[in-house]
Amino acid sequence: MTMTAGQTADFSTLASTLRGLAIDAVETAGHGHPGAAMGMADFATVLYANHLRFDASNPEWPDRDRVVLSNGHASILLYSLLHLTGVLGVDLDDIKAFRQAGSKTPGHPEVGHTPGVETTTGPLGQGFATAVGMALAERRLRDEVGADLCHHRTWVFAGDGCLMEGVGQEAASLAGHLRLGHLNVLYDMNAITIDGSTDLSFTDDTAAKFKAMGWHVLEACGHTHGEIDDALAAAKQETDRPTIIMFRTTIGFGAPTKAGTSGIHGAKLGTEEAAGAKAALGLPPAPFDIPQDISDAWLAIGSRGSAGRQAWIKRSERLPASELAEFYRRAEGRRPSTFPSSTNAPKADWIDSQASVATRKASQMALDVLTHQLPELIGGSADLLGSNLTKTAATDTAFTATSSGRYINYGVREFAMAAAMNGLALHGGFVPYGGTFLVFSDYMRNAIRLSALMGTRVLYVMTHDSIGLGEDGPTHQPVEHLASLRAIPGLNVFRPADVIETMEAYEVALVGPSVPSLFTFSRQSVPQVRLTGGSENLTAKGGYVLREVDTRDITLIATGSEVSLVMAAAELLARDGVSAAVVSLPCWELFDAQPQAYRDATLGAAPRLAVEAANPFGWGRYVGHEDNMIGVPTFGASASAEHLYEQFGLTPENIAAMSQARIAATKS
Amino acid sequence: MTMTAGQTADFSTLASTLRGLAIDAVETAGHGHPGAAMGMADFATVLYANHLRFDASNPEWPDRDRVVLSNGHASILLYSLLHLTGVLGVDLDDIKAFRQAGSKTPGHPEVGHTPGVETTTGPLGQGFATAVGMALAERRLRDEVGADLCHHRTWVFAGDGCLMEGVGQEAASLAGHLRLGHLNVLYDMNAITIDGSTDLSFTDDTAAKFKAMGWHVLEACGHTHGEIDDALAAAKQETDRPTIIMFRTTIGFGAPTKAGTSGIHGAKLGTEEAAGAKAALGLPPAPFDIPQDISDAWLAIGSRGSAGRQAWIKRSERLPASELAEFYRRAEGRRPSTFPSSTNAPKADWIDSQASVATRKASQMALDVLTHQLPELIGGSADLLGSNLTKTAATDTAFTATSSGRYINYGVREFAMAAAMNGLALHGGFVPYGGTFLVFSDYMRNAIRLSALMGTRVLYVMTHDSIGLGEDGPTHQPVEHLASLRAIPGLNVFRPADVIETMEAYEVALVGPSVPSLFTFSRQSVPQVRLTGGSENLTAKGGYVLREVDTRDITLIATGSEVSLVMAAAELLARDGVSAAVVSLPCWELFDAQPQAYRDATLGAAPRLAVEAANPFGWGRYVGHEDNMIGVPTFGASASAEHLYEQFGLTPENIAAMSQARIAATKS
Repeated sequence: MTMTAGQTADFSTLASTLRGLAIDAVETAGHGHPGAAMGMADFATVLYANHLRFDASNPEWPDRDRVVLSNGHASILLYSLLHLTGVLGVDLDDIKAFRQAGSKTPGHPEVGHTPGVETTTGPLGQGFATAVGMALAERRLRDEVGADLCHHRTWVFAGDGCLMEGVGQEAASLAGHLRLGHLNVLYDMNAITIDGSTDLSFTDDTAAKFKAMGWHVLEACGHTHGEIDDALAAAKQETDRPTIIMFRTTIGFGAPTKAGTSGIHGAKLGTEEAAGAKAALGLPPAPFDIPQDISDAWLAIGSRGSAGRQAWIKRSERLPASELAEFYRRAEGRRPSTFPSSTNAPKADWIDSQASVATRKASQMALDVLTHQLPELIGGSADLLGSNLTKTAATDTAFTATSSGRYINYGVREFAMAAAMNGLALHGGFVPYGGTFLVFSDYMRNAIRLSALMGTRVLYVMTHDSIGLGEDGPTHQPVEHLASLRAIPGLNVFRPADVIETMEAYEVALVGPSVPSLFTFSRQSVPQVRLTGGSENLTAKGGYVLREVDTRDITLIATGSEVSLVMAAAELLARDGVSAAVVSLPCWELFDAQPQAYRDATLGAAPRLAVEAANPFGWGRYVGHEDNMIGVPTFGASASAEHLYEQFGLTPENIAAMSQARIAATKS
Repeated sequence: MTMTAGQTADFSTLASTLRGLAIDAVETAGHGHPGAAMGMADFATVLYANHLRFDASNPEWPDRDRVVLSNGHASILLYSLLHLTGVLGVDLDDIKAFRQAGSKTPGHPEVGHTPGVETTTGPLGQGFATAVGMALAERRLRDEVGADLCHHRTWVFAGDGCLMEGVGQEAASLAGHLRLGHLNVLYDMNAITIDGSTDLSFTDDTAAKFKAMGWHVLEACGHTHGEIDDALAAAKQETDRPTIIMFRTTIGFGAPTKAGTSGIHGAKLGTEEAAGAKAALGLPPAPFDIPQDISDAWLAIGSRGSAGRQAWIKRSERLPASELAEFYRRAEGRRPSTFPSSTNAPKADWIDSQASVATRKASQMALDVLTHQLPELIGGSADLLGSNLTKTAATDTAFTATSSGRYINYGVREFAMAAAMNGLALHGGFVPYGGTFLVFSDYMRNAIRLSALMGTRVLYVMTHDSIGLGEDGPTHQPVEHLASLRAIPGLNVFRPADVIETMEAYEVALVGPSVPSLFTFSRQSVPQVRLTGGSENLTAKGGYVLREVDTRDITLIATGSEVSLVMAAAELLARDGVSAAVVSLPCWELFDAQPQAYRDATLGAAPRLAVEAANPFGWGRYVGHEDNMIGVPTFGASASAEHLYEQFGLTPENIAAMSQARIAATKS
C-alpha cells in the first residue's frame, strides 16, 4: 500500500482522528449519530488519502470527484473530513458547534450550507440515486467536452437503509443497466440497523443481487487498510460497470462496549464510553485535541490533488476561448446571453397560428425550441415518453449502456429519476427535465422536496394533470396533487394554459433564481388563450389579467386547462350583461411574490370565483373561502374527460351560473 | 396435464375467449390496454382452471385464494375472468361498458366497485406490495386459527413495470426475507414496455436477483399450457419460499402485426387488426360472441372450487360457537361489543395522572391498551420502532421467517410497508398499524392515497411531526406534510394534543366508517390538555372548545403539540383582561363533516388566530386568511426544538402578542 508524499501518520491514526471528532462532536452536542461515522472512518481515510480526486483548496473545482454521503446521518464524518483536509470555512469551531442553531454542521449534510458538501442527504436511498445522476452527468459531459476536461468519479457512502429503500434499488438497477463505470458505492455493511441486527428485516444476498444488476462487486474488511486500498484501486480499474465495495465494518468501531450494537447508531456514547473509546483508539483524552503531526498529515491529504487540478487548468486553457467560455457558462449554470429573447420568434409564430393543442403538446413544442437552443437541457421520462412528449428533435439520442445521448430512458423508476435529476443539476453542466404522470409525482415526492430544499434547477414535466385524462380512472387522476405540491416551500408549480404560457413558464424556470419547477400539463386539447402580445413574460408574474372589463362584476380565476373554460364563461356572462374579468394564475408562488398593489389590482375588488380541475384545498387564499371555487373535491372516476368535466361542473355554463349566484350572494 | 371435470374446451380456446373479450372491449371503448391481457391469457386460464382456490358463487369467501393484478392496466383480463367464471354482477353488459362512465369495469380495477376485485391497482409495483400484505395476513391468521380455517395463496400478476418500481423491489426483498411461502408472482415477461423494448431501460437478471432475495424462481413459456401447469403446480408445492414464475410471453398474443410490439400496450387494435387477431385465434368475428360450450366450460371452472368452499364451511362449523363468532367478527372487520367503552378506565387513569409526555409516547400508551383489547391489531414500523414507539406488550412477538408474530419489522421500506398494510386490511382479520417519521410519509404517499381511495382501515403512525424534532434538521422536519395529507380526499388526518385525544382518535379510527387514518405525533413532550371529562369522545367531532370564556375576544385554534401553547397564551391574555377561547382541532375532516351550527359555535364570531408548527397552506379555511396563522412557512433548520419554536414565533408570549394585534386590527 502506498502512502502519500508528506504523509507521516499511519492510516489507523488518521482514521482514529475522524472517530475522535465524531465522538467529541456528538458528546458536545448531546446527540447525533456516531456509529456509522466511526465504522466508516477507515475506508474514508484510505479513500481521501490515496484515491479521491480532490483539492481542499478548491472543493468546487469542476473536475473533482464527487462524494455523496447517502447515509447522511453520519454527517459528522463528512464534516470531519472537510475540516481535517483543510476546506476553508469548515473550522474546528464548526465541528464543535455540530447540530447547533446556525452552525455550518447541521444534523444532516446540506449542500450550499457547508463548503464541500455535494448534496443534501438524510432521506435514505436518495443520496445513492442522486449520485447516479452525477455519474450520468459526468459521462455525458465527458462525451461532450472530452476526457481532458471531464474525467472523474462519484463515490457513494451507503448503509443498509440505502439498499433497503426502493429508490436505492431503482438507482442500482438503472446504474447497472447504463453501465455507469465511474460510479463507486462504498457499502458500510455493519449488520446493524436502528431496530437492531440488520437480519431482523434484511437478508438479501447483496453481492448476488448487484451482480444480477450488472455491477462489479468487491468485498473487503472495512478496517484493514491494505484490503481497503486494494478494493478502491480495483474499483477505479473498472470503467465499464459501476462498482460496489461491500465493506465489512463494525458500527461504532473502537467503542469498548457499544461497538457492534444499535445503541451507538443514534446516541452519544456517554462520558465513560467516550473516554474508553478514545483510550482504546490512542486518542488524546481532551475533546477536539488533534496533535499537530496528525493535523499536518490530514492537510497533506487535502492538498494531494492540487497538482491534478493545476494540470486540469492548464489543459483547459488550451481550449479555444469560446469553448472554454461555453464550458464555464454551463458549469456555472448560466444561460446564453441570447436567451430568452431567442424564443420570441417561435412565440410570435404560435400567436399567429393559434393552435388548439393539449398543454403536454405545448410543452413538447416549447421543449423542441429550448433543447435546440440550450445544449445543457437533458431529457427523459419514466417510461412514458409517448405520453409525456418529452423527447424532442434535439434530444433524439438515447443515453444507453454504450452511448451518452441526451435522452435518458429512466424506466418505470420515478423516484430514482427525480433524485438522479437532482444529481444532474448538482453536478453542473446540465438542466435536467423528466416526465411522468402528475399522479405519480407521489412516487418521487421526497426527491421533489429535496430539489426545493437544495434549490436545484430541475424541471418536472408532469402530464395528465387532472380528471381530464379520462378513462384510466381515479388511480391515474390527480386531484390533490396541485395543493400538495404548492404546499412545498421553494418549489414553483406551474399550470400553464397554452403554449405561450408554457414557453413563458419554462423561461422563468431557466433564467430565474435556481429553484426547481414543476409543470403540470393536460392530456386533453385546449384552445389557445393568449392571442396577442409582445415579448413581456406575463407568466413570470405568476398571475395576470387575461381578459379585462370596464367595471368588473366578477373576477374569474383559473389555471391551465380551465382558463379557456372561464374565458368561455365570461363570454356567456357578457351576453347577460355581466362583466367578468379573467385572471390566469399559472404559478401561485410567483404571484404571491408580487407587490401587494399588483396582486390587489389583478384580483380586483369584485367578487371572485376560481375554477381548477383539482381539490379546492388552499384556494381560500385567493377567493376568501374554498366554497368560492369550482373544483374536484373528491376522487375522480373512470369516464371520458367530457363526462367528468360535466359531472364536476367544469363547464362554461355552470361557471356562468355560479358566477351569477356569487354576484347575487355578494349583493344580498 | 389434467383437465377439470366438466371441462370440454381446451385451454387454447378458453384463453382465446379471454383475448377476444379484451379485443372487443377495448375496440368498443375505443381505448384501453389489450396487450398484457392478451399476453397473460394462457397462464390466467390454466391458473383458474386447475389451481386457483376460488368459487365464483362466493367470491368473498374468507379462505379463497387472493388474486392481485399488479399490472392493473390489464384490467380487462380480470373483468373477463370474473365474468366468464360466473361472478354475479360482472355481466357481459359490464364488459361491453368497459371504461365507460358508471360502469363496473373502470380503466383500472377498483376494489369495492367490482365484485371479485381484491384490490385497486394501476400505480405500478403497489399491487405486488399489497399482495405481500395479504400473504402476511394469511400466514398470521393461519397461525391464529389453524390451517383448517385459513390456508390459501396469494397470486400476483405482475409486469416489468412492477419489478422496476422501487416498491416492487422492497416488496420482493421483504417477502423473501420473511419466507412468505404462500405468495406466488406470475411475471408477465413480455419484453415490452410503453416506450418500446424493455431492455431500453431494464436489463436486470431477474431470476438471479430474486434468488438473491430468497425466492423460489421458475421459468416457463407463458403460452405452452403444459409448462404453465407444471410451473403453477411447482409453485404450490413450495411452501417455504415465495415463488416467482417468469413467464415468457408475447404482448398482444394473436394480433397479426402488432403482437410483440409496444403499439398494442395501450391502444385499441383497430378494425382490421382486431378482425385478423380474432380470425387467427379462431374466434367468432362478431363482437362479444361466445359459443355456448365455451361459456359453459368457463362456468365449470368458476364452480370448480365450490366443493372446497363447502368443506371449509363444514370444518368451520365444528368450531365452538364463540370461536366461530370471533373468526367472523374479525373477518368482517367489526370490533367487540365491549369496545370502545373498554377504554374508559385507562382514560380515567390518564385524566387523573396528567402526565407530560410526547404524543408519540401517548400513542404507545394508547396502543398498549388497544393491542391488548383487540387481537386484530398488527403492528410494525419501518426500522424506527424505538422512535415511533409502535411496539407494545401485546405485540412483542416478531413476525419472522419462521414465526408469525404480531409485530412486523418492515425494514427501511416505507412504501412497501404502507402497501402491505393495505393488503393486511383488505385480506380481512386485521387492522394494521405502522410507523415512520411524518416526513417519510412522502416515501409512501401513493399507498396512503390508495388507502383513501379504497377505504382500507389502516392506521399510519407518523411521529416526529414538526420542527419540534429538532437537530436532525430540515430533511427530517415535516412542514408541508399536514397540508399535503389533508388534501387527500377520504383520509382522516389526526394531530392529537395529548393522550386523551390520542386514544379518542384511535377509537374513531377503529369504530368509525372504514377509512384510513393518519396520526401525527410529536417527538417532544407536551403537557396534558384534557384534564377533566367523561366518556364523550370529543375528538370524534374533529374539533371542540377546550377552553371557553364568557365573551370571546379571540378564538385561538391549534392542533397537537401547539394546543398547550395556545392554552398558555390564553392564560397570559387573561392576565391582560383579554378573553381567549381555545379550540383544539385534531381532525379537519371530521370537523368539516359536523353540522354548520356546531362548527360556527365552536369557531365563534370573535377574531380567530390559528397556531400549528406547519405550513399555513389551507388554514384560510378556518381563519379567513393564512396570515391569521402562526406557522412554519419555510423549511426548518438543524437546531433545538426550543430554538426553532422561538424562531418561528411558536411561544405563548408571541401568540398572546399576535392575539392582541389581531384583536386590534379587527376593531380598527
